Amino acid sequence: MSIAPLRLGVAGLGRAFSLMLPTFLGDARIVLAAACDPREAARGQFARDFGAPVHGDIEALAADPSLDAIYVASPHQFHARHAEIAAAHGKHVLVEKPMALAMDECDRMIAACERAGVHLIVGHCHSFDTPYLKTRELIASGEFGKVRMIHALNYTDYLYRPRRPEELVTAEGGGAIFSQAAHQVDIVRLLAGSPPTRLRAAVGNWDPRRVTEGAYSAMLWFESGAYASLSYNGYAHFDSDEWTGWIGEMGNRKSPDDYGAARRKLAAVASPEEEARAKAAGTYGGSAYKPPADDDEARAYQHFGPIIVSCDHADLRPLPDGIAIHADDEKRWVPLERPAVPRHEVIDELVAAVRQGQPPRHDGRWARATLEICLAMLQSSKDGQDIPLAHQPSW
Amino acid sequence: MSIAPLRLGVAGLGRAFSLMLPTFLGDARIVLAAACDPREAARGQFARDFGAPVHGDIEALAADPSLDAIYVASPHQFHARHAEIAAAHGKHVLVEKPMALAMDECDRMIAACERAGVHLIVGHCHSFDTPYLKTRELIASGEFGKVRMIHALNYTDYLYRPRRPEELVTAEGGGAIFSQAAHQVDIVRLLAGSPPTRLRAAVGNWDPRRVTEGAYSAMLWFESGAYASLSYNGYAHFDSDEWTGWIGEMGNRKSPDDYGAARRKLAAVASPEEEARAKAAGTYGGSAYKPPADDDEARAYQHFGPIIVSCDHADLRPLPDGIAIHADDEKRWVPLERPAVPRHEVIDELVAAVRQGQPPRHDGRWARATLEICLAMLQSSKDGQDIPLAHQPSW
Ligand SMILES: NC(=O)c1ccc[n+]([C@@H]2O[C@H](COP(=O)([O-])OP(=O)(O)OC[C@H]3O[C@@H](n4cnc5c(N)ncnc54)[C@H](O)[C@@H]3O)[C@@H](O)[C@H]2O)c1
Ligand SMILES: NC(=O)c1ccc[n+]([C@@H]2O[C@H](COP(=O)([O-])OP(=O)(O)OC[C@H]3O[C@@H](n4cnc5c(N)ncnc54)[C@H](O)[C@@H]3O)[C@@H](O)[C@H]2O)c1
Repeated sequence: MSIAPLRLGVAGLGRAFSLMLPTFLGDARIVLAAACDPREAARGQFARDFGAPVHGDIEALAADPSLDAIYVASPHQFHARHAEIAAAHGKHVLVEKPMALAMDECDRMIAACERAGVHLIVGHCHSFDTPYLKTRELIASGEFGKVRMIHALNYTDYLYRPRRPEELVTAEGGGAIFSQAAHQVDIVRLLAGSPPTRLRAAVGNWDPRRVTEGAYSAMLWFESGAYASLSYNGYAHFDSDEWTGWIGEMGNRKSPDDYGAARRKLAAVASPEEEARAKAAGTYGGSAYKPPADDDEARAYQHFGPIIVSCDHADLRPLPDGIAIHADDEKRWVPLERPAVPRHEVIDELVAAVRQGQPPRHDGRWARATLEICLAMLQSSKDGQDIPLAHQPSW
Repeated sequence: MSIAPLRLGVAGLGRAFSLMLPTFLGDARIVLAAACDPREAARGQFARDFGAPVHGDIEALAADPSLDAIYVASPHQFHARHAEIAAAHGKHVLVEKPMALAMDECDRMIAACERAGVHLIVGHCHSFDTPYLKTRELIASGEFGKVRMIHALNYTDYLYRPRRPEELVTAEGGGAIFSQAAHQVDIVRLLAGSPPTRLRAAVGNWDPRRVTEGAYSAMLWFESGAYASLSYNGYAHFDSDEWTGWIGEMGNRKSPDDYGAARRKLAAVASPEEEARAKAAGTYGGSAYKPPADDDEARAYQHFGPIIVSCDHADLRPLPDGIAIHADDEKRWVPLERPAVPRHEVIDELVAAVRQGQPPRHDGRWARATLEICLAMLQSSKDGQDIPLAHQPSW
């Protein structure tokens, strides 16, 4: 492998970055070459950890001629502008989900990257997780017939993790629709393998102390005739990781006895400001930040809750450590080797695009289609009717 | 208890009757006093087993002055007429789910029973199962706040069990909507504790060898503001009893290794006539019929798949052997004693109505509301839009 590693600049050194850090550290194809963040503590730690330049804002970062690509991991509301700035400086863009908050923002991002001739990849998103990619391959093999029905659910404590104030304000991109449906919708689209045509949804917004969407149920119809049911509950007390072998979203082993921790911790927090500080303290550069452990025991693939894809001749269940194939005449298990590096799939796609010119799956048009569905969820719940979908790329 | 047992006449000695037989045999409040069925073998066995009169049709059965009530367990399409005949003879009516096939049939049944001053109870239906009744009580206690979101799913081999021809013809009441949604909708209504106002659904009809609905996903909205997501897949290869501790619908212990049995057996059947004979052979009076075993090992309550009821302060999961309460600060388990007699809840309600005049929960109006929702599922899927609900009793 004589390909030079990608020199990556990071815009936003918060929780998303800390979740990607094990990937960047473990994957020789990436060099963390520079960063920007308004938080001085985060900049300081980055400079110390990587002996690399740090900047106060993305303009300065993007101007660094040594960078190949910029990872935009700033809050949602900055994704569009930050991607445009990166592209204007000729950098490839890896932008966190959700791509942006509005369709016209996505259009601008796509146009900016096209103009600059750079790749735009939206991720990490859980649709990058190998169990889903592998399930898509199994479906595409044709062995199991057509996809007919998909059922996806996820019960988490999403809404009770420490948040910045705007993460709890829907108009500013807060709530489970923008942050969590972005994962689930992306996965279901990938598995369906056919453009969704319409959506119906109900959203849940029922905790007066945290007034934003914490939950939803939705139905999607696909051109192929398949339909899907998606449910997410971020107010949950039940943890659906019980149905994924007690392996958590991050591929971590989880204990059923570690019950109610998020609600308990949050109860000790007195104000939104204190909560935002608690979030920052736990991320990169923060006082309570824990660097990724090397000996990450029993790591499996990451995931986003139980999913059942029903085809003519089998139900496929992507799980963190393998795919369960319940076929007409037998039950099979396709084991997945424990990943050497978590989320290596994101780097696979990024490097293939930048170095081999291979069009990425999770490009701007792909991710815009997921945002269309997320926005349609809010609209459908409000209007009390189906929302037809108009921006879904064909397969 | 000096209350005289109820003298029950049975109309239809098929599979439904064989599933109720352990209840009738185990419950001292019931005497099986007469029966009718066009199948001679079934009549013969009934006469031998109970030394009781048997009849060729329901008119003759209903005319028996010694009977208190008639259990209508004939095929769907006869429910309305059989209930009317029973009522006209002054008999209380216990009619199997689904109540009937059309709203006007329900109206006629309700009117006939009102005119005759007899009770009309629709069941067995899984909404009689103690885990759901107990969960309703827990919710009604107010301890957990309001119901916000319900998630119900069930993956079974429903469509591959042996069937009569009309059970595979939607226009004649065939398919999973009439036979299976009738259970799930009833349970979800019970748990929601508020009238549903509208429905959106997709139905699946994808096996060309068995052209009727085998699956659906649906959303229900309730007056209270809660919403529910219901999914059923009767084409399933995955068995959702994996998520109810491998306890099956009948409260039976199940082995994960007993995979694909229904499809395997069906593959050996050559024609619809042979299939109907296979179904009859397996039920009461049939050549392959096995009477209920006395030592029914490890019996738990019956159920209809995993269900999560999310309230403000807890997620409640009714399970065959208890209710899992995932509350704000702790996880609790409310164990349920193994039932002495399966489905005793049906007899509880019947006896309370007939002997104590207590209005039954599962009366005609209740069950008609479930049929309205089942019919709305078919309509919504066809029309591609929400169906408003107009016949939902208030709470
Ligand atoms: N894929 C995943 O698993 C995942 C997980 C968490 C977050 N995210 C996404 O990452 C993004 C950030 O969320 P988060 O949870 O990391 O939030 P966070 O608050 O933990 O981190 C955001 C970081 O961006 C910095 N920042 C703020 N304004 C900035 C600016 N103008 N320029 C550069 N940096 C700026 C903040 O100081 C902070 O360090 C969101 O879009 C979120 O959806 C993705
Ligand atoms: N609650 C449950 O768990 C459950 C389970 C199975 C069936 N059911 C319901 O019971 C009803 C019967 O279904 P099944 O599966 O038992 O079918 P089945 O074919 O096994 O039994 C029907 C019986 O009715 C008899 N019959 C036919 N026409 C009749 C008539 N005119 N008068 C009297 N008897 C007649 C048949 O000979 C047969 O014995 C259906 O409505 C079904 O939905 C309920």
